[in-house]
Amino acid sequence: MTAISPFAPASFPDLPPVDGMRIAIGQAGIKYRDRNDVVLAVFDEGTTVGGTFTLSKCPSAAVDWCRSALGGGRARALLVNSGNANAFTGQKGKETTTRSAAAVSRTVGCETGEIFLASTGVIGEPLDAGKIEGVVDGLHSRCAPGGWAQAARAIMTTDTYPKGSSRTVRIGGESVLINGIAKGAGMIAPNMATMLAFIVTDAPLSASVARSLIGKSVDRSFNAITVDGDTSTSDTVLLFATGRAKNVAPITDLGDPRLRGFKRALDEVTLDLAHQIVRDGEGARKFVSVTVRGAVSRRSARKVAFSLANSMILKAAIAGDDANWGRVVMAVGKAGEPADRDRLAIWFGDIRVAVGGERDPAYSEDLTSAYMKNDRIAITVDLGLGRGTDTVWTCDLTKEYVAINGDYRS
Amino acid sequence: MTAISPFAPASFPDLPPVDGMRIAIGQAGIKYRDRNDVVLAVFDEGTTVGGTFTLSKCPSAAVDWCRSALGGGRARALLVNSGNANAFTGQKGKETTTRSAAAVSRTVGCETGEIFLASTGVIGEPLDAGKIEGVVDGLHSRCAPGGWAQAARAIMTTDTYPKGSSRTVRIGGESVLINGIAKGAGMIAPNMATMLAFIVTDAPLSASVARSLIGKSVDRSFNAITVDGDTSTSDTVLLFATGRAKNVAPITDLGDPRLRGFKRALDEVTLDLAHQIVRDGEGARKFVSVTVRGAVSRRSARKVAFSLANSMILKAAIAGDDANWGRVVMAVGKAGEPADRDRLAIWFGDIRVAVGGERDPAYSEDLTSAYMKNDRIAITVDLGLGRGTDTVWTCDLTKEYVAINGDYRS
Repeated sequence: MTAISPFAPASFPDLPPVDGMRIAIGQAGIKYRDRNDVVLAVFDEGTTVGGTFTLSKCPSAAVDWCRSALGGGRARALLVNSGNANAFTGQKGKETTTRSAAAVSRTVGCETGEIFLASTGVIGEPLDAGKIEGVVDGLHSRCAPGGWAQAARAIMTTDTYPKGSSRTVRIGGESVLINGIAKGAGMIAPNMATMLAFIVTDAPLSASVARSLIGKSVDRSFNAITVDGDTSTSDTVLLFATGRAKNVAPITDLGDPRLRGFKRALDEVTLDLAHQIVRDGEGARKFVSVTVRGAVSRRSARKVAFSLANSMILKAAIAGDDANWGRVVMAVGKAGEPADRDRLAIWFGDIRVAVGGERDPAYSEDLTSAYMKNDRIAITVDLGLGRGTDTVWTCDLTKEYVAINGDYRS
Repeated sequence: MTAISPFAPASFPDLPPVDGMRIAIGQAGIKYRDRNDVVLAVFDEGTTVGGTFTLSKCPSAAVDWCRSALGGGRARALLVNSGNANAFTGQKGKETTTRSAAAVSRTVGCETGEIFLASTGVIGEPLDAGKIEGVVDGLHSRCAPGGWAQAARAIMTTDTYPKGSSRTVRIGGESVLINGIAKGAGMIAPNMATMLAFIVTDAPLSASVARSLIGKSVDRSFNAITVDGDTSTSDTVLLFATGRAKNVAPITDLGDPRLRGFKRALDEVTLDLAHQIVRDGEGARKFVSVTVRGAVSRRSARKVAFSLANSMILKAAIAGDDANWGRVVMAVGKAGEPADRDRLAIWFGDIRVAVGGERDPAYSEDLTSAYMKNDRIAITVDLGLGRGTDTVWTCDLTKEYVAINGDYRS
């Protein structure tokens, strides 16, 4: 099996129970034996939901289901399985989502449109609805507060550690909680990836506020990371708000000043989870931030940053501790965005390696090579054209990435 | 050192001398010791030239030079070096091209605007003009007909074999010759790569005909290949026409019916060289064609095809003999082009693995896995939407790619 990421935290962070939500974990035997592969989360009545999904033109059946269910803005349960993505499974896939949601709605006692589904794993193999139906009642009967760590572990595929994050924040003097778990590993790119993230708060957000908040937060976090530039069929981020925080009046307006601290805390949770995903990128041994400034716009800065962050040849150089800034020049040049070779400056960490269209006069190969041995690498590019700035995160490209992805199905 | 590609031909093809052109190879000691690293080709007066270059916003000094020289449409010499790309070398880089061209023009006795330059190798290190100046006179004195095989070898960087191709074709009953050499290896992507190709014919083409012909031919060959999706700063394809073929009247109109066979032969040469480049992709062990049909347009078909051909996770699966067609679905979905999951069909070779949005009912894992062990893999996708079709070529992503590109500079 794959070695655990060197970035794996010593222990799963403390995620306290969220009022209004209960969790159960089980074994549906979807792909693995003797492994938890299914999570049921049940929410109190009144829970709202917002979400965002893969931009893939070939989305999974579960993504289709959630997109449709999201219109109602209400949630009573979330069912997640690993081991099978239920993607490109045609009519059978649709039947599986329908039957799964029906089974959950029966046991919970709610409408099927209040059920949310997510599946991750192999694409193209039918997911047996019977396996889901067979465990739903048992899961429901065992639902209890807490259980976040086990849930984060149950949704893993090639992840080497479970990913969680939690913040408490004040809304009008009262404390509210934001918990999140995620899974990632490969096919991680903007507009998400084989990337699932579920965030739950007890703050009383209207569905439209939840939807807007999670959309903005994803743009700066899950949409700013890449492992391999690949986008999966199943990417899903959902934000559930149970509204059970005590003494907090409902928040129905995105401009509500009480949201300020909450937004910041939500952004911290999504960015923390996004970074954990990159650090657990398949085979990753280095965590790399790419900042582009001086671009004509933020959008342009992001495009250039992703051109670097998705460059196989640059990422391979980083894996080899190689301060190969020529490949940074290459990746800036190929991005197709406004750039002027002779205004370009490049830093590795604090070391400026190139300026004014050529190698920095003070360039030291020894100094730069020593920096490249770090397991956290910061690349900064100044295009010298405007005020657009953005940062994205990626990892290096190692032989292990190739090994993992040559063997995944077998 | 790197193992020679399993696709390396047993021997370099036979490239006869082209009338009106002489070649010399030498050692300028640019990066390597005891290795030929510079090629001078001298053309008779009357030679025309057309070319196409990288779309990088950070082109090399040699690319800048050639773009400017191409306006004249006349060529008397081509000077190529390996070991240093003279890219991102600022004012020094420009001085080096100016001094190199001046040295060649002096020894050949022509204008500097008739000199073409190409450099390949490390980016960002100044290329010492003195090293070029020191060898130019000697090269000129040794220029002789032939020498194509040695020239192809001298321009290699991480290539594991020299690349050449030749065709003879009739124009109005007379025989004309088309020879080409190329180098590639990494940073190979549409709009070329660390990719140099030089094609010489004795056909009497006007400069505008040469320019149009090479532009069209590149679109279907060098612009239809990818190793890693990376585009170098130095990509250059030049077509020289010496006009020395006997008894062939000048061709000044692209619609000239005498060009029909010539176009086909030129396309064969460029496609042969492009395929050789992909087969020698860094670490490549499999040669992969990706055909997309049923797209809304050819342009759309190409975008989807490149989405597959540049997918790290799909290429890693191919390296592992894994018939992972789920990743084909993923790559179709992420291309951003019109696609309908439920009309999609996918073949590996002649084996249809998916149809109508799900796995083919007749799918056999054993059969497909056996096919994946081939060293030539054909992936076909039918989008079922329209009549747009295109084919691109790539290679698998192996651990060797990562190893080569983590160590290139050291």
